[in-house]
Amino acid sequence: MSLVVAGAQTGPIQRADSRAGTLDRLIALLEQAARAGAQLVVFPELALTTFFPRWLLEGAELDAFYEREMPGPATQRLFDRARELRVGFYLGYAELTPDGHRFNTAITVGPDGAVLGKYRKVHLPGSAEPRPAQSHQQLEKRYFEYGDGGFQAFRGAAAWGAPVMGMLICNDRRWPEAWRCYALQGTELMVLGYNSAAYDPNGGNAEDLQIRTFHSILSAQANAYFNATFAVAVAKAGVEDGAGLIGGSVIVDPNGMILAQAATLDDEVIVAECDFGRIAQGRGPGKIFDFGFHRRPQHYTRIVEQTGIEVIP
Amino acid sequence: MSLVVAGAQTGPIQRADSRAGTLDRLIALLEQAARAGAQLVVFPELALTTFFPRWLLEGAELDAFYEREMPGPATQRLFDRARELRVGFYLGYAELTPDGHRFNTAITVGPDGAVLGKYRKVHLPGSAEPRPAQSHQQLEKRYFEYGDGGFQAFRGAAAWGAPVMGMLICNDRRWPEAWRCYALQGTELMVLGYNSAAYDPNGGNAEDLQIRTFHSILSAQANAYFNATFAVAVAKAGVEDGAGLIGGSVIVDPNGMILAQAATLDDEVIVAECDFGRIAQGRGPGKIFDFGFHRRPQHYTRIVEQTGIEVIP
Repeated sequence: MSLVVAGAQTGPIQRADSRAGTLDRLIALLEQAARAGAQLVVFPELALTTFFPRWLLEGAELDAFYEREMPGPATQRLFDRARELRVGFYLGYAELTPDGHRFNTAITVGPDGAVLGKYRKVHLPGSAEPRPAQSHQQLEKRYFEYGDGGFQAFRGAAAWGAPVMGMLICNDRRWPEAWRCYALQGTELMVLGYNSAAYDPNGGNAEDLQIRTFHSILSAQANAYFNATFAVAVAKAGVEDGAGLIGGSVIVDPNGMILAQAATLDDEVIVAECDFGRIAQGRGPGKIFDFGFHRRPQHYTRIVEQTGIEVIP
Repeated sequence: MSLVVAGAQTGPIQRADSRAGTLDRLIALLEQAARAGAQLVVFPELALTTFFPRWLLEGAELDAFYEREMPGPATQRLFDRARELRVGFYLGYAELTPDGHRFNTAITVGPDGAVLGKYRKVHLPGSAEPRPAQSHQQLEKRYFEYGDGGFQAFRGAAAWGAPVMGMLICNDRRWPEAWRCYALQGTELMVLGYNSAAYDPNGGNAEDLQIRTFHSILSAQANAYFNATFAVAVAKAGVEDGAGLIGGSVIVDPNGMILAQAATLDDEVIVAECDFGRIAQGRGPGKIFDFGFHRRPQHYTRIVEQTGIEVIP
């Protein structure tokens, strides 16, 4: 069974942009992907707004960036258009729950408009307190709670062959633990969106667009390979409210090879076909990543018993 | 503090080659690395013999491939020459203990000839029983017991700045769990040797030299990046007793960038300087891989509670 997937990279979404204008852009990308045959379209993390954790905000000014329902008044037409086109999608957004909790969230929606899975970001980068020396903040630890659901794989739509799927958000993709937890549930397709700075928000040794993009693609390729899964990793890119974001959206196969890669830092669709039968070459019986045959969990206990580094004497 | 390291890739070691001739080659590589300023030289996995798990063997024919002591009669002169040059080394070999246990083992030896650390391979690939359809076997699970010591970091020599070090062997490098267990002990330098087939020993979809080399380098780059450590990964390469082995030996920095890479499938020395101060950019306080600040072990429990895949309904 194979599935045609698309990554719908977006260029920057400026703070001054209207939500309606942003939805227009997302719908245009969705339609372009559908014309290219895509059955599932992956949008970025926080795809509806600028990356607001770069500022210290509060009250109504902060709340304006969160979605209280999904679909909601602004997003309903994306759901409607996708259902018309019989295309599913992954969408990242800031979630404000009825009881006041805030998460950096993504959902995967099936071709019938049903929400197939919901994920709340586990690996929040940045800090809770502003760092005075920085021109731009990274306040995700302030504006979001840690995802409370862990890494729960879910089934994609029947029309897609019901592949086992996993979702990650941005920084999660650099943590092999997250990918492995999904793979141990049989994940065949990982979908994830990101907003990744093209500069070092902590100051110090500045890193440039090129090395940050290399890290992003390396993370997708290596974790797809180690887990013998397909992966779609999609950026919000370009210069957003004065801050640089990397691009480098990719679709990767279970060999870690790039099937499609974005060439711009703007709105751009990439498409590739995922033949799930190819996963068996990596983790089928007796193969190099046959986990049950080769893993040695009794030697991995530090991974769960320790959070930080405990340097040996 | 910085350390100049070398990878001493070897070409094939044929079954007909004498142990003395092989030691001559290793010593020549050691001397070449020392002339280039290296303080630590990394040799391949099973660096003293052909990769014998490709055949079904028994009795004295099999036992001839194992070392009963280290250093032993054949290897003492490698230790002696290294001590004269004040150079340390990592050496992979087949270990037969006095009480009859067999391991795929590596040691790291300091510039004074002292054994600083010993590691027995945890992730044994291949099978215990021969697979009749294959032209070459991969019988590591037959000829070796699983490493019994896990992943114990150790201190490099004082003359090297006493970096925290870890050792892996071959297939281990594809398992992120192994790297993470070492990193959680503060590992700053990972050393590993390998013998990796340039064809698929399980038959099926044959993979070529190019993709296997890509996988090897990808594993070193990504795991060095995820753990913010330096890594030296060294091949036995070329056509050995009719079976192809990849090359692609690399020295990688904590950004996952390649500092040096072998260009041949033969005896070849690569050299690079490891400035351990650069590790803080990756995993220093508040940085992207500050494990204590960002890891969420409560969500990683599947990694130790499960060996194989348990597919969701």
